[in-house]
Amino acid sequence: MAGSLKVGLAGLGTVGSSVVRILQDKAAKLAAKAGRPVELVAVCAKEVRDKNLDLATVRWVDSPTALAADPEIDVLVELMGGEGDPAKTTVETALKSGKHVVTANKALIARHGAMLARAAEDRNVAFNFEAAVAGGIPVIKTLREGLVANRIDRVWGILNGTCNYILTRMLDEKLSFEDCLKEAQRLGYAEANPAFDIDGFDTAHKLAILTSLAFGTEIDCDAVYVEGVRSISLADLEMADELGYRVKLLGVAVRTDSGIEQRVHPTMVPKESPLAQVGGVTNAVKIDGDAVSLTLIGPGAGGPATASAVVSDLCDIARGDRIAPFGRSVDRLVRPRRAPMQHHAGGYYIRLAAVDKPGTAATIARRMADEMISLESIVQRRRGSRGEAQASADAPVPVVLITYATSEDAVRRALAAIERDGVVVGSPQVIRIEQN
Amino acid sequence: MAGSLKVGLAGLGTVGSSVVRILQDKAAKLAAKAGRPVELVAVCAKEVRDKNLDLATVRWVDSPTALAADPEIDVLVELMGGEGDPAKTTVETALKSGKHVVTANKALIARHGAMLARAAEDRNVAFNFEAAVAGGIPVIKTLREGLVANRIDRVWGILNGTCNYILTRMLDEKLSFEDCLKEAQRLGYAEANPAFDIDGFDTAHKLAILTSLAFGTEIDCDAVYVEGVRSISLADLEMADELGYRVKLLGVAVRTDSGIEQRVHPTMVPKESPLAQVGGVTNAVKIDGDAVSLTLIGPGAGGPATASAVVSDLCDIARGDRIAPFGRSVDRLVRPRRAPMQHHAGGYYIRLAAVDKPGTAATIARRMADEMISLESIVQRRRGSRGEAQASADAPVPVVLITYATSEDAVRRALAAIERDGVVVGSPQVIRIEQN
Repeated sequence: MAGSLKVGLAGLGTVGSSVVRILQDKAAKLAAKAGRPVELVAVCAKEVRDKNLDLATVRWVDSPTALAADPEIDVLVELMGGEGDPAKTTVETALKSGKHVVTANKALIARHGAMLARAAEDRNVAFNFEAAVAGGIPVIKTLREGLVANRIDRVWGILNGTCNYILTRMLDEKLSFEDCLKEAQRLGYAEANPAFDIDGFDTAHKLAILTSLAFGTEIDCDAVYVEGVRSISLADLEMADELGYRVKLLGVAVRTDSGIEQRVHPTMVPKESPLAQVGGVTNAVKIDGDAVSLTLIGPGAGGPATASAVVSDLCDIARGDRIAPFGRSVDRLVRPRRAPMQHHAGGYYIRLAAVDKPGTAATIARRMADEMISLESIVQRRRGSRGEAQASADAPVPVVLITYATSEDAVRRALAAIERDGVVVGSPQVIRIEQN
Repeated sequence: MAGSLKVGLAGLGTVGSSVVRILQDKAAKLAAKAGRPVELVAVCAKEVRDKNLDLATVRWVDSPTALAADPEIDVLVELMGGEGDPAKTTVETALKSGKHVVTANKALIARHGAMLARAAEDRNVAFNFEAAVAGGIPVIKTLREGLVANRIDRVWGILNGTCNYILTRMLDEKLSFEDCLKEAQRLGYAEANPAFDIDGFDTAHKLAILTSLAFGTEIDCDAVYVEGVRSISLADLEMADELGYRVKLLGVAVRTDSGIEQRVHPTMVPKESPLAQVGGVTNAVKIDGDAVSLTLIGPGAGGPATASAVVSDLCDIARGDRIAPFGRSVDRLVRPRRAPMQHHAGGYYIRLAAVDKPGTAATIARRMADEMISLESIVQRRRGSRGEAQASADAPVPVVLITYATSEDAVRRALAAIERDGVVVGSPQVIRIEQN
């Protein structure tokens, strides 16, 4: 058996601690599978999450950049996180020192992926980041290797466990968004500052990485249209349920006539579709290729699951597999043509608070017709139905429209006209529909 | 860019024709991804399925074994099928001539996988067979590489599209098994001789391969317990539906205290589980590891999907990735301890045709209790319910039992006792339940 692959690990939080455990507990099995031992030789960390880790045989290094340049290590594992320093300099230093790098850092890849991939390619070292997207689901490997023969037309999925937990739980337990978020925070499924997750930016980072791999384009994180889940009410989830849909925060990247559309927003998917069935913190990715449409469902976060992806990357390196980080040389990635969101085509769910007076429904229908928007269904509830608290006689009534495929532009124009007509109160709720 | 990888292809049926098309139509993209061209240089086939293929630039070779030893080729793609010759000799010849081999031949792998893997390892060439299991789903890569850090406890799934089509369609359209089979044959989803699919042997071959990869054991196809779907009636599917289950033909390999259990049989899975949702000819595999539980859903057959897997294997070879065919050296595969089916533990669905006389239910319940079998539910219908044709007064009545977890042994003993008691007519229908 060949000499061991010597690993330096920066970051001993939840994931880093799990990586140490796997490398130690499964050393013999991993060596058999990789063809050589994968050995942790040095670490660098501000604090150690798992206090029971046995790090007696491991050398401590003071700074992550020193670890990155350490002559003893073959590969640096970066698990500190954050798009800036120290992660960025650490990874750059390692690559420029001719070390392989494995990272779970989605923000770093989303912002600096091309630059880092070029550094890796220049030195002919590996730069692997399976753990950066969808945790334990091997979606990077699937896109980069398993579906290599496919022209990918769409990659989309549930990429944030926090949001999926909240949306699932709200409907199951009839909770408001705020109460559900508080519960998620109490259980550790949401951060004290939840903005990054619930406002969709975490999903956007992951989507930008998948987009690059799927379409062979340069990462363009700023081109992602982003809407989070704060505006979703229990009423929307219940109405969706009634109409045969589930609401999920999806990241969707799709090849369209006007370019690559990248978007993150609450999305209605038909109940019987695989993504609709995925509840709780679980992630799921669907890849629609010209030969294969594949759905992958699994854990998107957590120490052991994410560490599983990190160790898989390490074993690929130990085995000698060298693949371009983005599946082809970074010089071959093309600049994506960005499809503007106003050209987005699809169905829409629109919930309006309509003024309860004669002619309101006719006005709404007319404005839709003016924009050539066909309606699949209109639901107008009489006041006080579904056990709602008794409302005063002049309170608005909810009107829900489901449209057939139309354009974002048309919907926005129609809604602006309806608002000008003075037949609705407040802002309309708009949720895009994605067909399987 | 390095020199091209030169491919010889034996077999130009549905899959072979699709492989040719992909290699030709996507030559530039594949070269960019693999780092070098993947070039079809020679073929051998009895007939060509796709009459529009352009094979003008490709050399024809008379026999597959001559192709296997052809000095010009680097890799042989075997798409003839069949566990015996010519496939076996062709693949052996290629490996012994120092050529890489890619095959979609599950029967060959299931029967001779270890011998062929050893030949490949001796020559340090690749022997890849992604297309042999679940068509376009990259389940081999996922087990062998993506989940390399996991101890796998169970791998299970829907591995035969024909059976899944029939079981889905029977329930949706209220068809008998025989009518549904005829329709599947007419539509090309079932062979004229459907035995290999519907009696479970195709699933058993695929399961035996997955078992070896999941548990690091030698392939033992003969250890697979096999029951097909011929005995499944519409009444069973409807009763399962009513009780919250779907019936699927599953292949299940699971690590138990008494060894590795490998079984193929109609199985009831809870309706809300991912596998229950998979309808039609689609395949699905669930892999339960200690760090990651993953579900993969995709096309299990068809030219383009299967060819996608073949080309993925070719690109791995072109890139220089060499992995042991079964994920570790064949000499490290352990002889599996075979868990006998009578030790199988789980829940059961049992449908009996009970004699309609006082004491029958008590007798059945007593025999179950004697074997310490707890019942989750008992459904006994009065005669003529559910729109059944009017039956005579002494016709048997259906009794359905759902048990809590028990053992195969206990169930068999209880049913034998019930039959001896003379309170049932004909053979009981027994369907095992698999929990998610």
